[in-house]
Amino acid sequence: MRVAFLGLGIMGRAMAANLVKAGNEVTVWNRTPGKKVEGATTAQTPAEAAQGKEVVWMCVSDTDAVEQVLFGENGVDRVLTSGMVVVDSSTISPSATLNFAARVRSKGAEYVDSPVTGSKIGAESGQLVFIVGAEQSLIDRLQPLYSAMGKATLRMGETGKGQAAKIGMNLMVALNYEAFAEALVLTSKLGVPSENMLQLIQASMVRSGVVDYKAPFVLKRDFSPNFPLRLMLKDLKLMLDAAREGRIKLPALETVEEVYDIASEEGYGDLDYASTLELLEKWAKVEVKGAAN
Amino acid sequence: MRVAFLGLGIMGRAMAANLVKAGNEVTVWNRTPGKKVEGATTAQTPAEAAQGKEVVWMCVSDTDAVEQVLFGENGVDRVLTSGMVVVDSSTISPSATLNFAARVRSKGAEYVDSPVTGSKIGAESGQLVFIVGAEQSLIDRLQPLYSAMGKATLRMGETGKGQAAKIGMNLMVALNYEAFAEALVLTSKLGVPSENMLQLIQASMVRSGVVDYKAPFVLKRDFSPNFPLRLMLKDLKLMLDAAREGRIKLPALETVEEVYDIASEEGYGDLDYASTLELLEKWAKVEVKGAAN
Repeated sequence: MRVAFLGLGIMGRAMAANLVKAGNEVTVWNRTPGKKVEGATTAQTPAEAAQGKEVVWMCVSDTDAVEQVLFGENGVDRVLTSGMVVVDSSTISPSATLNFAARVRSKGAEYVDSPVTGSKIGAESGQLVFIVGAEQSLIDRLQPLYSAMGKATLRMGETGKGQAAKIGMNLMVALNYEAFAEALVLTSKLGVPSENMLQLIQASMVRSGVVDYKAPFVLKRDFSPNFPLRLMLKDLKLMLDAAREGRIKLPALETVEEVYDIASEEGYGDLDYASTLELLEKWAKVEVKGAAN
Repeated sequence: MRVAFLGLGIMGRAMAANLVKAGNEVTVWNRTPGKKVEGATTAQTPAEAAQGKEVVWMCVSDTDAVEQVLFGENGVDRVLTSGMVVVDSSTISPSATLNFAARVRSKGAEYVDSPVTGSKIGAESGQLVFIVGAEQSLIDRLQPLYSAMGKATLRMGETGKGQAAKIGMNLMVALNYEAFAEALVLTSKLGVPSENMLQLIQASMVRSGVVDYKAPFVLKRDFSPNFPLRLMLKDLKLMLDAAREGRIKLPALETVEEVYDIASEEGYGDLDYASTLELLEKWAKVEVKGAAN
């Protein structure tokens, strides 16, 4: 297929490369110039990239960035024609998604929200999970592209439901990690060696992919960014916005958002979100130690 | 071995029965009279049960109950002699545990904190996991009893570390369930069917034993008590007490304890802790629905 891929961050670049590998005709664009993908044409603007394509796939940083790419100067909407499909793999506001979809449809084009899970490794290996809001028939049309980049396509419902489910999932990621971090700090303060605590966690019902993935980094105290804290904070704010729009009270979410807000103010924004542990450690005057320390 | 088993609640009764099954000479006692275990002798007081035994095993409701059983009227300490071992499988305060252990040792007896995980099913099937604070040599002496009741004995460190690790684990149970409940409420309000959300959770890193165990009950809206909310609230208060004693700030724990406090005031105490979902639903004016509804 003829595909425009807009946004060459950690995720987008790997996804675009997999589209090229699968034999698609890919044109890429990135806000900051200079990024390229081997085998793909590079465009100067979103409109130039999107011109004449069957599918326009976005993976940018936030709601504002999606709006700019679609409707800003030299945005995609200048070249939208009937039958084109716009796909958004960014994680953005569910309600803004409804608005963007309506504006895209007014030009006769289609809109599919498809945020992803699976991290950088999943993007590179073509093992992402797509969390999709769209009609099944549209998903079927896009299946060759989904298959080039991912291992599963989970339909959550109509437009916007992909974004809604994604922020719900990330709410659980942030809270599950906070649970792990608070448990480590409490038990460390009480003198339980972290390795012992981990052994218990792994033998019990609180074991999760979040703990399995993060624990080795925590014990090595390696907080280099796999998922930067500032991006998780952005997602936490999306959840709070959605909760406020729906007049919903979500107490633990509100509390954890405050923790990330403080961590961001204290300069942890570009580290992994796992570094929120250090904030708890400071407050507790204790350090969670692995055997290696 | 000659064992006194004190406390015949849901867990204790099944544990004592497994000790009998394994060929031990068991004497049981329960605060509320009338409870019996087949094949075991029934005593009228803790002291009567403990008299002349090698091991005194407790599984009672809270810190005060342990103190009463050990040091109250007709308590175990009246008959404690050198070489006896007192084991506590209740979930109680780590700092009170240090105090009780010192008082037991002053009589020449030994003290082992051994709270458990594995729920009623694990207790009945002899598949509990014991979370132990004691010298390894003491654990070795008790191994035939542990093996009669459990599938694993995890040593967390010296006296008190079993209780510390247990409350750390339960902190994760409560927060992981809260994460699940808040995610379900948010995504339900945003129109994502719960089955779809569950499918995503199960395909992602936020899957855990907590979700796997609780999700079917949530979708059936069956909040009959497997782990009553009032007992989880008791454990949350133990965590907060331990945090305060250590001058530790644990923000999500504090918030979740408030949720359970409100739920308790609103009459959910004897339901399962999973019923905290209903409180969130009330606040959000939305109901999380399974396909069966």
